[in-house]
Amino acid sequence: MTQFTFDAPTVIRAKRDGGRLSDEAIDWVIDAYTHGRVADEQMSALLMAIFLRGMDRAEISRWTTAMVASGVHLDFSDLRRDGHRLPTVDKHSTGGVGDKITIPLVPVIAACGAAVPQAAGRGLGHTGGTLDKLESIPGFTAELSNAQVRQQLSEIGAAIFAAGELAPADRKIYALRDVTATVESLPLIASSVMSKKLAEGADSLVLDVKVGRGAFLKTEAESRELAATMVELGKAHGVPTLAVLTDMNVPLGRTVGNALEVAESLEVLAGGGPSDVVELTVRLAQEMVELAGLDGVDPAQTLQDGTAMDRFRALVAAQGGDLAAPLPIGAHSETVTAPRSGTMGDIDAMAVGLTVWRLGAGRARPGQRVQFGAGVRIHRRPGEPVAAGEPLFTLYTDTPERIAAAMAELDGGWSIVDGAEPIRPLIIDRIA
Amino acid sequence: MTQFTFDAPTVIRAKRDGGRLSDEAIDWVIDAYTHGRVADEQMSALLMAIFLRGMDRAEISRWTTAMVASGVHLDFSDLRRDGHRLPTVDKHSTGGVGDKITIPLVPVIAACGAAVPQAAGRGLGHTGGTLDKLESIPGFTAELSNAQVRQQLSEIGAAIFAAGELAPADRKIYALRDVTATVESLPLIASSVMSKKLAEGADSLVLDVKVGRGAFLKTEAESRELAATMVELGKAHGVPTLAVLTDMNVPLGRTVGNALEVAESLEVLAGGGPSDVVELTVRLAQEMVELAGLDGVDPAQTLQDGTAMDRFRALVAAQGGDLAAPLPIGAHSETVTAPRSGTMGDIDAMAVGLTVWRLGAGRARPGQRVQFGAGVRIHRRPGEPVAAGEPLFTLYTDTPERIAAAMAELDGGWSIVDGAEPIRPLIIDRIA
Repeated sequence: MTQFTFDAPTVIRAKRDGGRLSDEAIDWVIDAYTHGRVADEQMSALLMAIFLRGMDRAEISRWTTAMVASGVHLDFSDLRRDGHRLPTVDKHSTGGVGDKITIPLVPVIAACGAAVPQAAGRGLGHTGGTLDKLESIPGFTAELSNAQVRQQLSEIGAAIFAAGELAPADRKIYALRDVTATVESLPLIASSVMSKKLAEGADSLVLDVKVGRGAFLKTEAESRELAATMVELGKAHGVPTLAVLTDMNVPLGRTVGNALEVAESLEVLAGGGPSDVVELTVRLAQEMVELAGLDGVDPAQTLQDGTAMDRFRALVAAQGGDLAAPLPIGAHSETVTAPRSGTMGDIDAMAVGLTVWRLGAGRARPGQRVQFGAGVRIHRRPGEPVAAGEPLFTLYTDTPERIAAAMAELDGGWSIVDGAEPIRPLIIDRIA
Repeated sequence: MTQFTFDAPTVIRAKRDGGRLSDEAIDWVIDAYTHGRVADEQMSALLMAIFLRGMDRAEISRWTTAMVASGVHLDFSDLRRDGHRLPTVDKHSTGGVGDKITIPLVPVIAACGAAVPQAAGRGLGHTGGTLDKLESIPGFTAELSNAQVRQQLSEIGAAIFAAGELAPADRKIYALRDVTATVESLPLIASSVMSKKLAEGADSLVLDVKVGRGAFLKTEAESRELAATMVELGKAHGVPTLAVLTDMNVPLGRTVGNALEVAESLEVLAGGGPSDVVELTVRLAQEMVELAGLDGVDPAQTLQDGTAMDRFRALVAAQGGDLAAPLPIGAHSETVTAPRSGTMGDIDAMAVGLTVWRLGAGRARPGQRVQFGAGVRIHRRPGEPVAAGEPLFTLYTDTPERIAAAMAELDGGWSIVDGAEPIRPLIIDRIA
């Protein structure tokens, strides 16, 4: 066997000068960084070189494989229920504002007869994280052992857990990207998402790739390329994967913030809720059950007949949560009212995301605590009629000194117009 | 006064996206990094962004000013001798192979009647450093207090000392650049050199900017731009500065290595030595005495009449060195002989530099100890006649296991040709 020896400056220099990283260089640098033999300052220089020079699909694939190999790789191929193999399927979103879709979607899929091993993340920057939202339910824990994940999948068909031992190289690299301005890079986003999802061991995968001003990548072309890259990465690793491109110019639903989004998700699971949240949940569920090979099931029906709600209650109970306890809500609130009558115009997802972040629902640094009760309720969505003096937005926080900065973020992020406001289609494309 | 607040990701992002760094951003990031409020991994991401995006002259100037401001700024404007103000002038080389010019040059200038406050550096990579060379003299120390520097300048006209408290931001950044592949960047080289030299407080400055395969920047165009940038930086900071572009395709002189180069410098100070070393010493000295405003002095004469040697002996004695003690020489040697008769062809400065580095004369990491007696003696320079079997190179080291790798570096770095070998001019241009 050939022995390859590398050092960090040589690997950095190759990418700095616009070259490709060899498979051996990628394997070496990911392993050495995971084990502390490449220093943070060397990895961050390499990440900036990757940000500015890019990586081709083959480099991204190897980088992803190396990050998967840095930790444990879960395997649910022997999962059975009622004497049959239980198919697994998962969903990942590239991150948006008001994007609580995972919460109703996971129990819908469980109710349809597949199992969802969802390794979820926490919010960072202007976007929320599924774990932060679920942890607003009193008692809920995402710290599950592999055995508990397996048992929940078998019994309930769903587990939502912290990535823990999955792709530790990605966890180290992600923390570094956030403080070194190397987040918004297609190769780094694609490899980060797919390393966690491949390590998680689902049979197949549906990706919700966001497009628009509330997404990390700003242009539709970049989002398309990201989707195509991740779909190819999944297939190359033997995991059937497809992506749905969805609009993220406007927040999803009528709530943004941890506990507020859980409450809205419960409305959806009870057969109600905002139409856009229901539409996206059902569409992603249809893609997932098809990928999982389930015939004759209707995801929308599980929201109406209560079977999805039953699965969600079982999931929360299994993970220690108490849905009978009241959800937290910020002790202080401030409401923005309509200065005149008209039609609610555009609402900027980025402005709302930053408003909620300022209110205390998000983090400035990894590991910070978030306020479960902080957030924004959107009383009027684009296109809805508005009368002068009616409430448009209510801001919640436990720390009233945050309200001024939050109001400043929201300012200019919405408008009232005359006549009709054109509504953007939510589903833009499907990339398989 | 306006209050500016910054954070590292915002500053990094600005340069990453190809923008200019504002004066306030530069001041903030250099100060915050010096005091540990910006982390190494953040500065290295910024350095890579600068490497790939560049900085304009105004940014380089401000970056330099901020690095000077990070430490003490020496001031010799009140230096007097015999009732007159004593002019100060210094020289800096961008680094080459066999470049021992500082050692004879500083006492020449002292003998001409100016004073040289030389803050010198240690070698890194394939190039040697003046301090490593002088420390091969038993007892020599470069750790001088500011008071001792001042006293030596006044009495002898020369002090060669470790940069110490000068531009500590540059010292931290330089250590980072070496391990993150961000050394060969014009803005970073220019600001690093000039921050130390401006902090050192000499009245005027002559730069020896190397051109060719043994230099850090490989093309003549890059070296010209570096020279012009540094000359402008000096003038903008009120220090008359000029640059001489000199050839660094071939090693300077007949020795490369710490003690070997001190011995060759003593030959030059005794009125002999290799013609190229003498030529460059005298040329740089002429530029320096002119900048210092000294009339009617002949630097070449000080090498012939022993006055430069007297100053060198006084300098070494003042800094604890013992020139009566034998200089160290590697305990093990290996000689390369001529395989055939002919003319010595080209000798590759980079190959010889790496050979000497492999023999133990240089460092792989900052802070490593160097072998004072390691190095290469060049018996035949390009254009000199060679008889089959004659010695061409002798390699010295204290660690014989290094010889094989050193011989491999030298291999292919020289040739024997038929007929005449064209000799490159040593002085390429002057940029004032």
